[in-house]
Amino acid sequence: MGVLVVGSVGLDSVRTPFGEVEEVLGGSATYFAVSAGYFTDVNMVAVVGEDFPSGHISFLKEKGINLDGLERSGGKTFRWRGEYGYQLNEARTIETRLNVFEQFRPKIPESYKNADLVFLANIDPELQLDVLHQVKGAKIIAADTMNFWIEGKREALMRTLKEVDILIINDGEARELAGEANLVKAAKTILSFGPDILIIKRGEYGALMFNEKAIFSAPAYPLENLFDPTGAGDCFAGGFIGYLASNMNLGEQSIRQGVILGSVMASFNVESFSLERLKSLDYKEIEQRYREIKRLTFFEDI
Amino acid sequence: MGVLVVGSVGLDSVRTPFGEVEEVLGGSATYFAVSAGYFTDVNMVAVVGEDFPSGHISFLKEKGINLDGLERSGGKTFRWRGEYGYQLNEARTIETRLNVFEQFRPKIPESYKNADLVFLANIDPELQLDVLHQVKGAKIIAADTMNFWIEGKREALMRTLKEVDILIINDGEARELAGEANLVKAAKTILSFGPDILIIKRGEYGALMFNEKAIFSAPAYPLENLFDPTGAGDCFAGGFIGYLASNMNLGEQSIRQGVILGSVMASFNVESFSLERLKSLDYKEIEQRYREIKRLTFFEDI
Repeated sequence: MGVLVVGSVGLDSVRTPFGEVEEVLGGSATYFAVSAGYFTDVNMVAVVGEDFPSGHISFLKEKGINLDGLERSGGKTFRWRGEYGYQLNEARTIETRLNVFEQFRPKIPESYKNADLVFLANIDPELQLDVLHQVKGAKIIAADTMNFWIEGKREALMRTLKEVDILIINDGEARELAGEANLVKAAKTILSFGPDILIIKRGEYGALMFNEKAIFSAPAYPLENLFDPTGAGDCFAGGFIGYLASNMNLGEQSIRQGVILGSVMASFNVESFSLERLKSLDYKEIEQRYREIKRLTFFEDI
Repeated sequence: MGVLVVGSVGLDSVRTPFGEVEEVLGGSATYFAVSAGYFTDVNMVAVVGEDFPSGHISFLKEKGINLDGLERSGGKTFRWRGEYGYQLNEARTIETRLNVFEQFRPKIPESYKNADLVFLANIDPELQLDVLHQVKGAKIIAADTMNFWIEGKREALMRTLKEVDILIINDGEARELAGEANLVKAAKTILSFGPDILIIKRGEYGALMFNEKAIFSAPAYPLENLFDPTGAGDCFAGGFIGYLASNMNLGEQSIRQGVILGSVMASFNVESFSLERLKSLDYKEIEQRYREIKRLTFFEDI
């Protein structure tokens, strides 16, 4: 039942042209889990330090996230500091302190081992493989990765990709992973590495889904007030994967609906810093924005 | 009846990672006219020099374009030389020689004066205004512009915009024209300058349509073989405006269909250098790609 996510939980300090925040709740597993939690049961595997505020634990619990796999280690919590320019399209990392995340070795609790779907957030591909060895019963494996691993751990990453059903990366990562500037060609190459489904996230331009038979193009929801893109990609993955975990249907239309829900969740998340918007979000708002994206893209036959 | 276009006709030399061509047929009015010609009657106003190859004239005539307003001046034809990198997203201009285009003063032939729709391609906004004074009977005015005029002739451009019903520009131009990084806010500002409909072209990411009531997001057709983006924006405008001229319907669905047809025409054009692909294109292929974009974007309700 539900989804198991392995990734980071941390404290982010972010500056955008519209404000700044210090040491707020962040991390790929956090954004993913809160977003996916609107659709399915979520089991989180991550590590925090002794200094991790108990209020954040309470918040995640209130959101219904199973924290049996959240390790509390002696040491400091993972921290990231970054900033964005006016176009809000790419973060400039000012500082990353791995802290307890540096020695993170994911241990999957027994209670998680019947999760149907596993999402491997952006961590070392060797750890991703290690997780897969611990959850052999999972029916669907989804993963993210990043340029750092594409460049530095390509061989391990290629082994991970062989096991992955759904890969979710951004356009720059897709081009680098395939060694190909054209996205359609890059997608074909990446599908030949193992995944059956490839999602290419394009930030403010939405996302593309590629499988063996088709391409699906999903827009981003056009926002007038966009405050902080941090976590948008993980909220996208959470909405998409959370929906698939709720129906366990990898049919074409289910995947397309999931991609739109991913886009919906990302669009809410960027409306405020950290997870502020998701704190108050209810499911009716999700359904409403889904319908708005339908209207945004609909056109009649000629 | 039909559309009147005022713009440039020239000879382009283009290098992309996939090849290069010297002095091939180009220019905003050319791309627009050939594209629009699939949907409506096209009347062209432009200037060429004594050196303009007669073969190009024959080609435009074969495409059914009315050339009564194509002036042949003593001197050399407008020339542009540019190149693109692997991502093919932005041209680097190596050389522009205005030649006869420098002294171009559009004269609208009597035979064009009952065109229902006028498209002012990217020329000096003072010339755009001058054209509008000559075609007072036109029912719909559409226009393009560029950063050069936004920066250098803002006052004249603002006067033109007051007269314009449909403005078609790219995302960078929209941000600069409005002085606003957020596209949704930028669009609202631009609509307050005069146009009822704003189309923002986003290259490989498609286009957005804004009017008072709605936003429409159209994808670009994902191409595996993309050779040369030169003229894509003008082919987009040609498909869009040509379709509107054919039905003279500015209703929401007609506009959306037009935007998709614009995207279809741009997608064909970038498949080869110059107008090579449009030379052999037939209407059935246009309809087929329209249906493919429908499939590309379709998703069911949840």
